[in-house]
Amino acid sequence: MKKINFSAGPAILPQSVINQAADAIRDYNGTGLSLIEVSHRGKDFIQTMDQAVSLTKELLGISDEFEVLFLQGGASLQFYQVPLNLLAEGTTAGYINTGTWSEKAIKEAKLVGNVQVLASSEDKNHSYIPKAFDIPSDLSYVHYTSNNTIFGTQFQSLPETSVKLISDMSSDIFSRPIDIDRYDLIYAGAQKNIGPAGVVLVIVRKEALNRIAKKLPSMLDYRIHAANDSMFNTPPVFATYTTMLTLQWIKDNGGLAAMATHNEAKSKIVYDAIDGSSLFIGHAVKEDRSHMNVTFNIAKLELEDAFSELCKKAGLDGLKGHRSVGGFRASIYNAMSLEGVQLLADVMKDFEQKNS
Amino acid sequence: MKKINFSAGPAILPQSVINQAADAIRDYNGTGLSLIEVSHRGKDFIQTMDQAVSLTKELLGISDEFEVLFLQGGASLQFYQVPLNLLAEGTTAGYINTGTWSEKAIKEAKLVGNVQVLASSEDKNHSYIPKAFDIPSDLSYVHYTSNNTIFGTQFQSLPETSVKLISDMSSDIFSRPIDIDRYDLIYAGAQKNIGPAGVVLVIVRKEALNRIAKKLPSMLDYRIHAANDSMFNTPPVFATYTTMLTLQWIKDNGGLAAMATHNEAKSKIVYDAIDGSSLFIGHAVKEDRSHMNVTFNIAKLELEDAFSELCKKAGLDGLKGHRSVGGFRASIYNAMSLEGVQLLADVMKDFEQKNS
Repeated sequence: MKKINFSAGPAILPQSVINQAADAIRDYNGTGLSLIEVSHRGKDFIQTMDQAVSLTKELLGISDEFEVLFLQGGASLQFYQVPLNLLAEGTTAGYINTGTWSEKAIKEAKLVGNVQVLASSEDKNHSYIPKAFDIPSDLSYVHYTSNNTIFGTQFQSLPETSVKLISDMSSDIFSRPIDIDRYDLIYAGAQKNIGPAGVVLVIVRKEALNRIAKKLPSMLDYRIHAANDSMFNTPPVFATYTTMLTLQWIKDNGGLAAMATHNEAKSKIVYDAIDGSSLFIGHAVKEDRSHMNVTFNIAKLELEDAFSELCKKAGLDGLKGHRSVGGFRASIYNAMSLEGVQLLADVMKDFEQKNS
Repeated sequence: MKKINFSAGPAILPQSVINQAADAIRDYNGTGLSLIEVSHRGKDFIQTMDQAVSLTKELLGISDEFEVLFLQGGASLQFYQVPLNLLAEGTTAGYINTGTWSEKAIKEAKLVGNVQVLASSEDKNHSYIPKAFDIPSDLSYVHYTSNNTIFGTQFQSLPETSVKLISDMSSDIFSRPIDIDRYDLIYAGAQKNIGPAGVVLVIVRKEALNRIAKKLPSMLDYRIHAANDSMFNTPPVFATYTTMLTLQWIKDNGGLAAMATHNEAKSKIVYDAIDGSSLFIGHAVKEDRSHMNVTFNIAKLELEDAFSELCKKAGLDGLKGHRSVGGFRASIYNAMSLEGVQLLADVMKDFEQKNS
């Protein structure tokens, strides 16, 4: 039996993408060679990389004012690489702290230069998104984590500022349309909505790259990766190829508007199950709830194991919550079906009836 | 028809590894989930990572005095990360320049601290390995590129020094036994003898890590990766898994001594074809010839296209030489069979008979 995968990341991918990736491992594009043994300088892989870039631009509505890069090191390396490139000496970057991932980004940025934490949701275990706070207009950039996988919160509107934004969209990119004009840079580890672990997408405004005045280590220099079309060194071939397949799947399934509608419908099913229950309690405040990660606890702690057991029997996998919040977390990225989510809601209702 | 893959990297992998990798994409260890959608914190992947580490230690004869890490960014990021961690302020690192890859390593190290180039083969287009030169005894380390894929040269003996060595073994690790006592650190991009692109192996002496006095960016700090068993952030799951499979294949096929015997036998077949010919000319001097990459030119340049065509017809792929050397390059890593190499030698002999 194929399980239904609610893992936070690496996470569920479309079954058709999984099948195509497996096929390409045996024979890549009919070349008579495996995807994982061909030269990245060959015409097939150059075409794959080009497709990944052009699909990213098409889906997000990105103009040629931006570079689209596929790099290594995950969002975690971007926590350092972003300020190294874009936090100029003598300037200050603003960061919004919505939990674990923001905190890691802030920590690495402080190694590079001046950081001002503009707002934080730390006071309430990051169960909400900070809203009314001042943003100085002379900041280099304002950084925020678009969706927090651990606490299940998500920005539903953008911070009000004339300063260009930088966002870690690792866990909700391609789940809804974005307003690209507001950004200097967006980065996203692939292993949620994009593809397998091992590649990170970086979208960066060319004008921002032109402002870099420092000499940087080659592998940490966006300008070098841009000048080499993400092929300065051997790229993560398999992860890039599978990312391209996933982007094609998103396009074939209606693009970002369709993804957003689908994701809202899915999250509503689980949130309705929580709100209609006296046993399950949502962690995030309603207006900041994530459409990607639904976090909830059980009012009677002693029932946690029994609920886990019931989910397991129903083939629902990866629902254990992060230790910072406890309880449960249903990650319902693009590739999660409405049926999968409905099954979870049914199991929740069934469990409540038996235990109330 | 399955082609015979002589690419320099990404490169040939054992067919059994390719098959197992494709199977795991569909169902990983019978979990009912794909390898590329499971959590890296799950017990299956933790076991995969542990196996990759223990196989590395077993094959190379490495004691617990070393950390074995699987990271991202390839050898290219190591060019910077190595000196960032191990080139202490006020000290100097020695580098041996045997071509492109050494030059890149030297360039990045100079961003960090003092670098002394101890010897270079630049005067003869890197067709040899420098041998008699002085090595000061107070260097932080001596860095060399064990095998040069572009020029087809390989260190057949180690530099004479009491200083600990650091080696980029990207293109010949696991191809022969090594004397681990001589090293503080070894690194190797996976995409030749280890696995697919997207993961880099770093073996580092714990005592060397204890000497680091600087605060470093988390993702560039070996100590942080070591403390987290290469799981500080999401590792490149697929590339690490396939690496583990390849290491198991090496073990099942007799380990490094058997690999060395096999690789010597294979390279001898191609070098004999070159030496017995008046048409083909080897690039590297005989005593420094690589057992991994055989580089050669054709005396009559106008015959290059015809030879390429003949190879293609015989199903031999990836033989085009690097632009720095021109001509041809047969990369014959561990997974290349004796039969594949014999077929190349036969095509060379056939071509010579027709054209002399």
